[in-house]
Order: sequence, then structure tokens, then C-alpha cells
Amino acid sequence: MTAASEPYDVIVVGGGISGLSAAKLLKATGLNPVVLEARDRVGGRTFTVRNKETKWVDLGGAYVGPTQNRILRLAKEYGIKTYKVNEEENLVHYVHGKSYPFHTSFPPMWNPIVIMDFNNLFRTLDKMGSEIPQEAPWKAPHAEEWDKMSMQQLFDKICWTSTVQRFATLFVNVNVTSEPHEVSALWFLWYVKQCGGTMRIFSTSNGGQERKFEGGSSQISECMARELGERVKLESPVYSIDQTGDMVLVKTLDNEIYSAKYVIVATPPGLNLKIHFNPELPPLRNQLIHRVPMGSVIKCMVYYKENFWRKRGFCGTMVIEDEGAPIGLTLDDTKPDGSAPAIMGFILARKCRKLCVLPKEERLKRICEIYSKVLGTEEALHPVHYEEKNWCEEEYSGGCYTAYFPPGIMTQFGRVLRQPVGRLYFAGTETATEWSGYMEGAVQAGERAAREVLCAMGKLHQSQIWQPEPECLEIPALPFPTTFWERNLPSVGGFLKFIGVSTVLSAATAVGLMAYKKGLISVAK
Amino acid sequence: MTAASEPYDVIVVGGGISGLSAAKLLKATGLNPVVLEARDRVGGRTFTVRNKETKWVDLGGAYVGPTQNRILRLAKEYGIKTYKVNEEENLVHYVHGKSYPFHTSFPPMWNPIVIMDFNNLFRTLDKMGSEIPQEAPWKAPHAEEWDKMSMQQLFDKICWTSTVQRFATLFVNVNVTSEPHEVSALWFLWYVKQCGGTMRIFSTSNGGQERKFEGGSSQISECMARELGERVKLESPVYSIDQTGDMVLVKTLDNEIYSAKYVIVATPPGLNLKIHFNPELPPLRNQLIHRVPMGSVIKCMVYYKENFWRKRGFCGTMVIEDEGAPIGLTLDDTKPDGSAPAIMGFILARKCRKLCVLPKEERLKRICEIYSKVLGTEEALHPVHYEEKNWCEEEYSGGCYTAYFPPGIMTQFGRVLRQPVGRLYFAGTETATEWSGYMEGAVQAGERAAREVLCAMGKLHQSQIWQPEPECLEIPALPFPTTFWERNLPSVGGFLKFIGVSTVLSAATAVGLMAYKKGLISVAK
Repeated sequence: MTAASEPYDVIVVGGGISGLSAAKLLKATGLNPVVLEARDRVGGRTFTVRNKETKWVDLGGAYVGPTQNRILRLAKEYGIKTYKVNEEENLVHYVHGKSYPFHTSFPPMWNPIVIMDFNNLFRTLDKMGSEIPQEAPWKAPHAEEWDKMSMQQLFDKICWTSTVQRFATLFVNVNVTSEPHEVSALWFLWYVKQCGGTMRIFSTSNGGQERKFEGGSSQISECMARELGERVKLESPVYSIDQTGDMVLVKTLDNEIYSAKYVIVATPPGLNLKIHFNPELPPLRNQLIHRVPMGSVIKCMVYYKENFWRKRGFCGTMVIEDEGAPIGLTLDDTKPDGSAPAIMGFILARKCRKLCVLPKEERLKRICEIYSKVLGTEEALHPVHYEEKNWCEEEYSGGCYTAYFPPGIMTQFGRVLRQPVGRLYFAGTETATEWSGYMEGAVQAGERAAREVLCAMGKLHQSQIWQPEPECLEIPALPFPTTFWERNLPSVGGFLKFIGVSTVLSAATAVGLMAYKKGLISVAK
Repeated sequence: MTAASEPYDVIVVGGGISGLSAAKLLKATGLNPVVLEARDRVGGRTFTVRNKETKWVDLGGAYVGPTQNRILRLAKEYGIKTYKVNEEENLVHYVHGKSYPFHTSFPPMWNPIVIMDFNNLFRTLDKMGSEIPQEAPWKAPHAEEWDKMSMQQLFDKICWTSTVQRFATLFVNVNVTSEPHEVSALWFLWYVKQCGGTMRIFSTSNGGQERKFEGGSSQISECMARELGERVKLESPVYSIDQTGDMVLVKTLDNEIYSAKYVIVATPPGLNLKIHFNPELPPLRNQLIHRVPMGSVIKCMVYYKENFWRKRGFCGTMVIEDEGAPIGLTLDDTKPDGSAPAIMGFILARKCRKLCVLPKEERLKRICEIYSKVLGTEEALHPVHYEEKNWCEEEYSGGCYTAYFPPGIMTQFGRVLRQPVGRLYFAGTETATEWSGYMEGAVQAGERAAREVLCAMGKLHQSQIWQPEPECLEIPALPFPTTFWERNLPSVGGFLKFIGVSTVLSAATAVGLMAYKKGLISVAK
């Protein structure tokens, strides 16, 4: 073990987007930060692989869209361009073994009862979300009640039809890589809300999946790391943080000791557990970090010789409801110049846990089979290349995309999520209040934690810690106007009540009329 | 960092009862194990404190009872005697601000509807438990369905009365230091079942709380540690396990490197996260260990000059239902010779998270206030000494008594709980199949893991890994006979149906009779 190096101003644990954007801001203020990254690369849950078959491919976080202004600002600063995910041709909804092309954010439904049910579900999720404070979901008026419920329980309450129940499950699977019965309703409602609502989170055009970065999302981290230079230490997993002395001492697996006045821990909360703390963390944080697991997902990229789906009128987006299908959602992943035609697909939650034990070739085979069924062509059975990344196997991520809160945890432990512990401050996308779980949230959290440290140093007033971000002019957010019918269509329950009441009223009127005719009641003249 | 020491046969991570009993068995077989313990003491979640005020006091695991034959065997081997927890006088059930003395395992109920409901609840829990295989709860016929449900949801289904709902909540709080909405129904039903059912788990006499060890439960670990001698290394938290070479290399915070052919990890599953693994753990284990949090409890011992409760006809057991009361369950903790009169009480789950932020004195004050109310005397307001232990603050336990499984985790991840990873084997009470969560389970798990290693070494046949334990003759298990009424009393639902049907039948009979009298129906003569 070498002696502690020259002291730094701030040690940042974790070289993902959050940690790097914290260090970047600190350096820009004239401070001397160091970033300790466990892996042999920066980027964390973003991971761009380059090879001749793919040119480049994002096997981790990739998508950005309007209202994600911080990550777009960073990209612009580094000259990293975005391009639109192809959504020109039809999307396709595969359900009950049949493919239904469509061209809206959500697949349309046809049965009038299902339409009412579907409309009511998403309207209700947004309405409940509107009651939840983004920065403190535990303060929502119904926080306790909603936190005791899983999303499954909430769906059981709201949804009347199995069609909508099943789609609701997919909605949870796709957005948070976990199952409705695993997650707290309060947490999930908060999660969707802080992304801007059900339309913003689920849409490609005008939503969270509108764009990707030309050249891959890891470039953002790579550019920040280049800017930080020697200050970024790779292959340096932190295993010990000691804040009992004047300086905080941080030890890494490669036997280095770093010292600094402050530390920003920019890992998912559960990965705080990789560190032995002296003194121990306070009781609530010590327990919180055992209670916020990461979701389960394998990101799968299938490459083809030709972009056969566009020729057949499909943009590449498939929303797949089929228990036997490995994939739940796909998007076109062809390069903007049309080269390297590929389909990106997610193996989500329960399916991920089931299929992760298969050999890679078997997963590819099953994926191609379902693509072939959904797109109605054997061409899907002949891939030329395959890339996949199972995030569940990553010791230093624990899973992807993000941490989820099981029932009961948000109200009991949520308030310590970003509460500093001595000279430790907490970043990581899980601590964000806008687009938490996304690259955008990582930047918000990293910059906020950096400003908390600046505030602790007396270089910044407390009121300046949280800063709003101006909108990216090139990628403005359009509103999602709701139609009269979306706002006013009754729920199935409301409709049945109405029918019931009308029936009773009609019956009463009929009886009244008959009685009048038979002279059993007299009407004053 | 020193060079790796002389190789051992087996490195055991964790010097609690499980790790020590693994090492003890290995040593007895002629092998050379070493135990690496993070703390400056052995015993893990058992923790006996000695001082003049208390003589000795168990601030961690303490209770043993019939059917816990392995821990009783160890105690007997070391000459550690047990004594019965006092249950001579009345127990008391405090509810709606009133005290009701009783003298059965469960508090009796008086309202006939509540009696039916209460009886049906516990009968149903045991009946459901009987369907769950102890060694593989994920194989239960209804595993998927029950795992998607929280215990709260199950209670909502079974219980008709708020009285029973509230008691059911306390039952979960007391047994697993967590909330009904936090835990999987499958897991909790399994947990109660593998302890021998609702009566065995909850009873003092003839149940899990029947006895304590004279001199404290830590003695068991201390005796095992003495036997192992230099092989137990204290203050040696493990932060790295490398099994890429011929020998497994294990590093500790005090800069030692240990090497061995095999490793037994005898920590709670979630504390595997304190270790950096090379190679990484397989995906399902990597995610499991983020998904099994430890419960929340503060164990509180209030000492009095005199044992005033026995004088007033109370044994010291209080079952307290009162949202404002810190404590949910108490037991007499007076020494067997009558010295050091004390009441042991648990601050459980939600109350633990709320009250852990208060100063110790404030907790003591509130505890004495509720004892005073329940026992109906001001004497309770004048303690002479107080000891408490908040297990949530322990970095190397994560909480107490044991890990819980939130909804959905047992079926998706349960099967990897004790699945070896290369040369790593897993012990710890969480991996047991009898009295998991207790000292007994720790011994079962430790000895089983040791035999797995012996099997891997070719010293034992696979069929010998799992071994039943003969019954402790001095502490035999008595059956819990069920009465005719307990077996046959209807549930409230059943009763109402019966009433409904009878009413319809009575009405039909009455109508029939009247019709007959009026000559509207003729009866063949």
C-alpha cells in the first residue's frame, strides 16, 4: 500500500456521466478533483463498442430526447451530434400472435371497452403523478398509501380488461426493467412523472427515445475524461472510505490511497455497499442501500445485410406482447446514413432472469424467430452479426437501467437518498429529480453534488445548488395535447355506472308512464 | 500489502455462529480452516455485553427452544446451560389503550366474529405453509402467485376484521422485523413454516422463545472461537476474493492476503456486496444480493430495581398494539436467579426507522411510558439502567434479525441462494432450511456448507451433505394439538355464506309452508 498521494480537493467515486460531470464542474471552478473509476473504461451504464461489423454500437444507455437539456448541452459542447431514431414508417404492435401496424405513441386499441380502459389507465397514472413532488415523492398527499401498493395492485384497481392489464405490465417492464409486482406504486408514478409523464417517457418522436448520439453515447464521458486528463484513474475500484481524520482517505483495489477534503459518491445507491466506511454510515442510509436493487435487462442488437423492415413499411419499432417472446420492445438501430442495418431489442425483467442462463446463440435464435413472426418475413431469420450486453452480470452496475424502489421503501428511506454523510455527497442518476434513471438525470445529479461541495466550501450560496437548465433550442419539447375524448371518455367503471343509472332511470320512466296510463297515479293539472 | 500467508484448506468469511460452526466441523475433520471476521469480536448477530449493571445481556439473538436441536447440541457440548424465559404469571395484550391478561400462546379474542377471523387466519397461514417445500419454496404449487403478493395483500384477502388485520401486522413485525407490505407472501409463509408453524414461531413455552443461554448467547461463538484458536482473525473485513488462480486469494482491510483451496462465505447474502469478486459473480447471484435487505430492529433492555411486574401478576410478556408505542413485544429478561430485573422489548420495522433518529434517552422515556400504561403502574417509569442495540447501524450485519424477500424475488432468484460459485460456498442463517433467521439456522447452514466443501474435496459423498439432527432429549418438542373448534370453526366468509344460505332456506321453507296452508300447492297423500 503506497502512502496517500498529494491531496485533492474532491474525490469522485465513479466515472460514469454523473461522476464525470461533477468533476468537470469542479475543475471549471478552479478546483482539483480526481475521479476513481472501477472499470477499465469511463461511461458506467453507457457503453459504446466499436468494431468493423457495427462501426459503433451503444450497448448501454443511448436514447435522448426533448426536455433532456443538460445532456444535450454537454453533447453540444463537445460537438457530438444527435440523430433521430427512425420512426417514419409504421410501428407495429404484436399481440395474440398478430401484427398491427400503427403510427402513434401508444398502440391504438379497437374494442370500445378497451379504448376506455386504456385511456383511463394512462390518464390516471399522469393524474396521480401530478400530485407527487418531484424532489420529495415521500411528501405526496397519498405517499404512504401509494407506497404500500405495488404497481400490480394499482393496475388491479384501475384496469378492467386483461388487454390493458397486459399492456400495463409491458409499460412497467420497458420503462424500469422490473415487474409491476416488484415496484412501489408511489415510486413508479414518481418515476414517470419526473420524466414528464406517460407520453414523454414512452414516445420516440418528442419523447425519451427520439434521438441517439452519432458515434455513440460513451463519447460524452470520453470527452469529459479527456478534459479531466490525469485526474481520471481507471481500474481503481474503491473499497474503503475513511473520514475519521482531517482529510478523507479513499483506498482502491490497486493499492492506492487518495486523500481529499470532500468525496462525491457517484454510483448507484446499492453500490455504496462495495465500500467499507469508517465511521459506518448512519442507520437509515446503511439500510437504504440494501433496499434499492437495479433492474434486469439484456440489450440485444441484431444486424442484417439489408434494412428489409423499412422496405416492408415498418420503421423497426415493435411493441411485442407474447410471453414466449424474449423481446418486449425494439427500435431501429440502423446508422443515420443507412449503413449497418440493425434492430435493437430489450430482454426485460422476468424474461431477462429466465433467458440469461441460455447460450448467446440460443438467445439470438429466439430473437430472430420473434422478429420474423412480427415482421412477417423469413429475412429476419438471417442475421449477419449480433451484439448483446447483459447488465445483470456487471458487478459495478448491478443491473440496468436504474434502481427501483420496492413497496414501502420510498416513504421510509427516500429522504436520505441524497442526504450528505459528513464530507460525503451523493450523485448518480438515482439521486436526480428530472429524468432520474437516464443520462440527463446523471448530469443533473453530478452537477448538483458538485455545487453542494462548492457550497460546503463556502464558494456558493445554498440557493444556487439546484439550477434549472435552459431549453436546448435545436431540440425543443413539443406539448402532448390531449384530445377532448382523452380527457372526457369515461373509465369502464364510470361507463358501467352510467349505463346502470340510465337503465334504472329508463326503467323507472317506463314504469311511471305505464302507471300513469293505467290511472294508478294522478298528475295535478 | 503483505504477501499471501501459508495456504489454508478453507477460508471462512464471517465469524458469526454460521462461519464458526463451519470452521469447527472442518477442523474436526482434520482440515486447516481460517475464519476472517470483520468486527473486533465473534458472534455476528449475537452480541452479549457484560457489565456490572446487567451482569450480562444479549443485545442480539438470544432465544432458543424445542426443535432447535443443532444450536442446543453445540451449547451442551460447551456446557452452556439454558433457562426458561419467565412465563409463569399472566401475559398481557394491550390494545385500544387497555390491558387484557391472558395465558395462552396467542392473545385470546372475545367477539365471536373476531374469534372466527383470528382462528381462520392462523389456520390458513399454516395450511398454505404446508404446501411449501422447506428446501425449495420456489417449487411450491402456488409459488408464482404467492410470490407476486405481499403479506399485506394476503391479509387483505383472508382477514375480515380490522382487529385481526392489526394483529396480523404485529405478527409480521415481530417475526421478521419488517412490514406486511414489504415482504413476499411466499417468503413469509415459507419462513413461518420452516420454523415449525405459527404456534412454534410465536410461542414462548414450547416455541422459539422458550429459553435463553445462561451467561449469554455469544458464549457459543466464543467457545467455538477458542477451540479454533489462532485460526480466527478479528478486525479482518474481507474486501476482495480472487479465484482466477490455483488458490483462492482473499484480502482483508488490515492488508493481509489469505489463500486457500475453498472459501465459505458466511455472511448475510446482502453483505456479499462488501466484497469485490474476481471473476464477477454470475448474473443472478450478482442481482440477488441487491434484493434481500435485512430487517429493522432496536433491541431495548430496561432494568429496574425490583421485579414489580411479577408482583402484580404479570410475567413480563406484553403484546402491544398501539401505533404510538415504540415497542411491539416484550419478554421478561430478569436473570434466572431473580437478579437484574429487566424487560426486553423490540422496536420493530416502521417504528425502528422512525425512532432511530431520536436520542437514546428519549427512546427510553417513551418505552417506560408505554410499560407504565400496559402494566398499570408508575414503577415502570423509574428504570435504573438501560441498554439498547440498533442493528440498522451495523455495517457488517445490515440489520436484524434476518434478510427478507420482497415480492417477486424468491421465485426469480431463490434458487441461487446457496448455489456454489466456483470454489465459493455459501453459509449464513439465510441459506438454512430449518429455523433460517435463527441461531439454529446458522448452525445448519454452516455445517452444510462445510460438508459441501468436504464433498468437493472428495472426502464425503454428496448424499451426506444434508444431515438431520437428533432431538435434544432435555428439551423435547411437544406437539401443538389443535382443538375441534380450531379445525372446524368457519371463517367469517364461510359463516356469512352459511347464514345467507340458511336464511334463504328458512325463507323458502316459510313460503312453502304458507303456500301449503293456503292450499296453493297440493301434497300427494
